[in-house]
Amino acid sequence: MERLTSRKNDTVRRLRLLGADRAVRREAGEYLCAGGKLLREALRHGAEVTTVLWGAAPDAEVPGAAQYAVPRELLDYVSPLKNTSDVIFAVKIRPWPPAPPGRALVLETVQDPGNLGTILRTANALGLDTVILTGSCADPYGPKAVRAGMGAVFRQRFYEMARAEARDYLRRHGLRLAGAALSERAGALQGVDLRDTAVAIGSEGQGLSPELLGLCDSELIIPMRGDCESLNAAVAAAIIIWEMTKT
Amino acid sequence: MERLTSRKNDTVRRLRLLGADRAVRREAGEYLCAGGKLLREALRHGAEVTTVLWGAAPDAEVPGAAQYAVPRELLDYVSPLKNTSDVIFAVKIRPWPPAPPGRALVLETVQDPGNLGTILRTANALGLDTVILTGSCADPYGPKAVRAGMGAVFRQRFYEMARAEARDYLRRHGLRLAGAALSERAGALQGVDLRDTAVAIGSEGQGLSPELLGLCDSELIIPMRGDCESLNAAVAAAIIIWEMTKT
Repeated sequence: MERLTSRKNDTVRRLRLLGADRAVRREAGEYLCAGGKLLREALRHGAEVTTVLWGAAPDAEVPGAAQYAVPRELLDYVSPLKNTSDVIFAVKIRPWPPAPPGRALVLETVQDPGNLGTILRTANALGLDTVILTGSCADPYGPKAVRAGMGAVFRQRFYEMARAEARDYLRRHGLRLAGAALSERAGALQGVDLRDTAVAIGSEGQGLSPELLGLCDSELIIPMRGDCESLNAAVAAAIIIWEMTKT
Repeated sequence: MERLTSRKNDTVRRLRLLGADRAVRREAGEYLCAGGKLLREALRHGAEVTTVLWGAAPDAEVPGAAQYAVPRELLDYVSPLKNTSDVIFAVKIRPWPPAPPGRALVLETVQDPGNLGTILRTANALGLDTVILTGSCADPYGPKAVRAGMGAVFRQRFYEMARAEARDYLRRHGLRLAGAALSERAGALQGVDLRDTAVAIGSEGQGLSPELLGLCDSELIIPMRGDCESLNAAVAAAIIIWEMTKT
């Protein structure tokens, strides 16, 4: 196996840019992942691994990938994450083929990548069918979202759509849309009928945009104590996903 | 207002140690908080603020506190958090007075401070009465837990207890204890009667210890898809708290 030691090596530079820059990821059609556990998940789910940098002895077969041995400090250089693990690899972005939404969640402008990854992980664990990303969400292929997702990026069907496109897609398949909101006309989550209904969740700070609220058929709310702050976005999403999927 | 500029100033050193070291916090009976929003929360909930370091013009009255103007870089020096805000302050640890548990959650060895803070925030928002910390949990007064809690440290009743002590406290008040576990005898959460039942949740990696499982009257599980990883600890706790409090 070839050994790379220079930060100026083309492969090293390419992978570092994949971790650093969303536009580069989209242009290249690849994203960066870290860790042996995630690598095994990628292989188990048939993700196309293009390149592997091994900072320790390889402990997995990765057919078809370009593989290199690298010193540990080069892994730390390539990955934007702290506590880099023994292996870093690049995976082809493979958008999910079109399919009916089933039970679906719409995320609008969830900008914290850790929250986005955690929501994809939760959706996958609880058996939600589809997550739709709209507005200005964090990049689901960014390193922090991928890490928080614990492999959900390989397993959970998600689409990136404009707001109106999402609405049309849901309506075409007979789904209503309920927006999680803090308004007076919002119904308490525990009393809302969620059959044939997708739910839209906004950013932690701002909630849903007026534009997306305008596309909703109804509004729902997680009732909270009056004197408290709010719920973390991934927590609010988890409670809603739980109510959508528990039956 | 006196201006401090030296890292060697006694107050500066004391506050930095409060942020860095759990043993120092417990010895001093104080903990460190950051941010104007959290300061307003502290004052609103009657927390005893002992010391304030202002990196910008003071925008709150803090009666009884020693207050100092400091350069911004000194705030960054004192706080272990990145993105330090304009103000840092110390608050007296004031353990919650004894009270009946009401609806109660037991956390065993939840070691990630962000998860611990998020769980306290969720418990508070959804109206849980009591959180019991046992085993080797992260310090609820540590900077990351305090930040993730978004003020829950001032509002949410919690106790630190040994396992058997927690069990006795719950039993004395007529509560059973259900352990969140992945065993075959665990009942699916959506079918479990949670009245008069406290729920125990373990660490993300390990689950509940055999010792704590041995103190439980029953076990429950959040059903998940077979091929997936698991839920984030704060997400699992949120779903359980939701089920405990939603009626």
